[in-house]
Amino acid sequence: MPPVPSEGNRPLSVWAWGYEDRLPDDEERRELAARVEGMLGFPERPILDYPSLDDVDLPAPSLSVPDELADVVTTERRARASHTYGKGYRDIVRGFHGDFAAAPDLVARPRDEADVESIIAWAAEEGVAVVPYGGGTSVVAGVECDGEGYAGVLSLDTREMDAVLDVDTHSRSAKIQAGATGPEIQAQLADHDLQLRHYPQSYEFSTFGGWVATRAGGHFATRYTHIDDFVESVRAVTPAGTLETRRLPASGAGPDPNRFLLGSEGAFGVITEGWTRVQPRPPHRGRATVRFDDFWAAVDATREMVQARLYPANCRLLDSNEAMLNELAFDGSHLLVLGFESTDHPVADDLDRALEIADDHGGRCPDGPTIEDRTTGDAATDREATDEGAWRDSFFEGPYLFNALVSMGVLVDTFETAVTWDTFPDLHEALSENVLGAMREECGAGFMSCRFTHVYEDGPAPYYTLLAPADVGNELDQWRTIKRAASDTLLAHGATITHHHAVGRVHREHYHEEAPDAYLEALRSMKRTLDPEGIMNPGALL
Amino acid sequence: MPPVPSEGNRPLSVWAWGYEDRLPDDEERRELAARVEGMLGFPERPILDYPSLDDVDLPAPSLSVPDELADVVTTERRARASHTYGKGYRDIVRGFHGDFAAAPDLVARPRDEADVESIIAWAAEEGVAVVPYGGGTSVVAGVECDGEGYAGVLSLDTREMDAVLDVDTHSRSAKIQAGATGPEIQAQLADHDLQLRHYPQSYEFSTFGGWVATRAGGHFATRYTHIDDFVESVRAVTPAGTLETRRLPASGAGPDPNRFLLGSEGAFGVITEGWTRVQPRPPHRGRATVRFDDFWAAVDATREMVQARLYPANCRLLDSNEAMLNELAFDGSHLLVLGFESTDHPVADDLDRALEIADDHGGRCPDGPTIEDRTTGDAATDREATDEGAWRDSFFEGPYLFNALVSMGVLVDTFETAVTWDTFPDLHEALSENVLGAMREECGAGFMSCRFTHVYEDGPAPYYTLLAPADVGNELDQWRTIKRAASDTLLAHGATITHHHAVGRVHREHYHEEAPDAYLEALRSMKRTLDPEGIMNPGALL
Repeated sequence: MPPVPSEGNRPLSVWAWGYEDRLPDDEERRELAARVEGMLGFPERPILDYPSLDDVDLPAPSLSVPDELADVVTTERRARASHTYGKGYRDIVRGFHGDFAAAPDLVARPRDEADVESIIAWAAEEGVAVVPYGGGTSVVAGVECDGEGYAGVLSLDTREMDAVLDVDTHSRSAKIQAGATGPEIQAQLADHDLQLRHYPQSYEFSTFGGWVATRAGGHFATRYTHIDDFVESVRAVTPAGTLETRRLPASGAGPDPNRFLLGSEGAFGVITEGWTRVQPRPPHRGRATVRFDDFWAAVDATREMVQARLYPANCRLLDSNEAMLNELAFDGSHLLVLGFESTDHPVADDLDRALEIADDHGGRCPDGPTIEDRTTGDAATDREATDEGAWRDSFFEGPYLFNALVSMGVLVDTFETAVTWDTFPDLHEALSENVLGAMREECGAGFMSCRFTHVYEDGPAPYYTLLAPADVGNELDQWRTIKRAASDTLLAHGATITHHHAVGRVHREHYHEEAPDAYLEALRSMKRTLDPEGIMNPGALL
Repeated sequence: MPPVPSEGNRPLSVWAWGYEDRLPDDEERRELAARVEGMLGFPERPILDYPSLDDVDLPAPSLSVPDELADVVTTERRARASHTYGKGYRDIVRGFHGDFAAAPDLVARPRDEADVESIIAWAAEEGVAVVPYGGGTSVVAGVECDGEGYAGVLSLDTREMDAVLDVDTHSRSAKIQAGATGPEIQAQLADHDLQLRHYPQSYEFSTFGGWVATRAGGHFATRYTHIDDFVESVRAVTPAGTLETRRLPASGAGPDPNRFLLGSEGAFGVITEGWTRVQPRPPHRGRATVRFDDFWAAVDATREMVQARLYPANCRLLDSNEAMLNELAFDGSHLLVLGFESTDHPVADDLDRALEIADDHGGRCPDGPTIEDRTTGDAATDREATDEGAWRDSFFEGPYLFNALVSMGVLVDTFETAVTWDTFPDLHEALSENVLGAMREECGAGFMSCRFTHVYEDGPAPYYTLLAPADVGNELDQWRTIKRAASDTLLAHGATITHHHAVGRVHREHYHEEAPDAYLEALRSMKRTLDPEGIMNPGALL
């Protein structure tokens, strides 16, 4: 991963994804406009000015900083504005238009668990809603709270707690504080020649605690990629007390306590730290890109590879639209980007076998496979090397383009799901019809692409990107209709409302249709026990 | 797996593990006595008569069969006796002595989910405790309920619901009723050339629903071996209603609902069916047995293999005592039994790499590896073939020897845990000291052996077998002291009270020390929501 400077030296955008200085400039936006007009046939797009902090319309805080928390709580304007939203389309549109109506009254930056306990105790006493905040990269309004029925809203930013506290190289695990971001973890583990190797697209900014709270998925396609499978133990501060699960490789004692905090989205408490599995950098790698003329042949090849248990680290099927969008193919080919890696042994045979399966389904690999077998020494000195060059850059660059598109009147969103293989064809067809239909109706045109982000023996996790020419000022109404078409179609086909974006507030209504009623009631009773005043992230999840 | 006739044709023992006709006869018991006396140096052991159903001291039922449930409920003597206990040492000792004081008042055999719902509705109305019963193979008193504070106890036996209801060969998954045993599932999936490949030691008798309720571990060492990782969805009848999770390969929507039922031990409701991942029989196999002079060198080799992500299906480290007990080595060698398998590709390279790692740690493989690459056709016709001959037989024969040992005044028990690699040496040393010490103090002698049943990148799941000469009539007092020494030592060293035997009632007290208080409170509030009258398996888990 590229080393990323910390926020301290480099301001983050108040309204958009990422660093201010990485927002595409006017020339880049003109090129982008030419692409969406030329490639997607959209009508001419405007190049609107980016907003500045001065444009922000921020309501006055309804709370003042309590004396006893003066060291860690602020009402400062920039802090409140930048803690108002996550980074979904709806958030960036509102930020772009200077609408920060949902700003928290207070922002807290606890330095340690004692601070977290004090803040929560105060909030419970005063009836203040507490919104745990990590990287603020939620795309489902996980960090946005309207505070209705509360004395106010406090955004609890965990990023001061950013240390790797302990490393057990023998068992390959590390104890990490909740507020550590991907690059901060990477840098600290590098001293031990270890890596976490959990790379969600939000990696640069999102935090360990946020990953656990939202069940984050990394960019690897199989095996260790979900934070769920990394976690050995979790520690959390709830209004009913601090709890810590035992650090274990496995246990059969009752329902897994880690799994109650994984996906809890701040509704039970604030995750403060946890033990997680780590690994050395893999010196053995292999990669190849396979081209298919037929999407369904590519789907079958992908399914066979994963059912063969070859465990490709990358197994990213891009449909022809996605391949075009990523500037990887313009001839209508569907691409299967394969990567294998191992800390221990060469992977050429596994890659060859995958290519054989691809070939059986008409997949061509004109450039052949690329194999890398470095020595461990190389790996240690070269631990920052990127894995896949072009794709990796575009993976982390994507959200900046997203910002730019919003400023050019382009409706842009992504949604993702998981479904069994038998159901995927019908689901895909229905999504194409319903979501493209909704975009055309709302926006007069629309473009949808699909890739598999993760694959399982029993089904894929397809990820869709949407683009449409928006009616500036009316974008959110258009978006709501399109989003509903997507979500309704997912649920009607037995797919999940989210594979790794979480529930937050955007997916809450559909989540309540997906989850069994009795289970939701049980979760609510659990919340009442851990959070009797209901101050923890009200409105998210439950 | 060997085909196993159904219970209907062949009576199960009322007091002991398994089929009556497989109980070791007097000659076998005399040989066994010679072994424990010669090999372990125990004083001469008696050969006591096995009890018969006539010897059973069964209290009168405190309930009569309700008219509306007459089709599915009985007070029949044999049914009540055989549903009294699980199959732990404590159970078999009491059964052997004819003590069936804990017998349920009623035994129900629902034919379908509607019957389950009727039974639960009736029990909630009447204040009757309901104990879900699958194979009755619990070793932690999971199916035994004293009924204190209830109008009576009903054992709800799910085994009439034993069908594979649906198979999706494309996604490799199957919908299975809760009461289907291992062999019943095997036989029904064979029609589709598929297998579940979940092989707990109780495989012959235990059921799908029981596996889910107790988070069963299969006999494979890595990858798909825990039922947790097989399950796509679960359906359960709770007193508050029937709930079913969505069938999905993965989801990130809130805390995983399947994980609330996995390990719930009947405390929330009765699992009635579920979708689970299945697979073809693997035609590619490789196996080898490695001998080590030094136990800790063997431990290091095992750790390296699993951290290398070679994914051995079997990776069973037997210490020299365990190797002797299984009659596999008598020279003080520690054995590492390795097995690799694949449905898709040869595994010789992986096995070679594992042997290379073993060799680095002084492991010798005098017989070399055995490689099998059958064609798929062979696999289809030969799907009942055993995997590992001697070990597999001894794995399933073990519990019968356990029965015989109880009838010969031998205290015999097993316990298991999981712990990170860094902690294992201290834990192992402390267990050797404390548990052997307790056996010597209580029984004058004792023998303990250790094997790894499962291995993870961050730690092993060690499994201990205990043997000691018991004072017949006083066995349970002796056992309690020894068991407490083991359990206390586990918890003091940060290990879990159970890796796959579950909590039940035997481990409840220690489980309540292991699990965070706030989490237990949350589980209790969940139970109150799903089971407001508290009729579901009271005393188990919570």
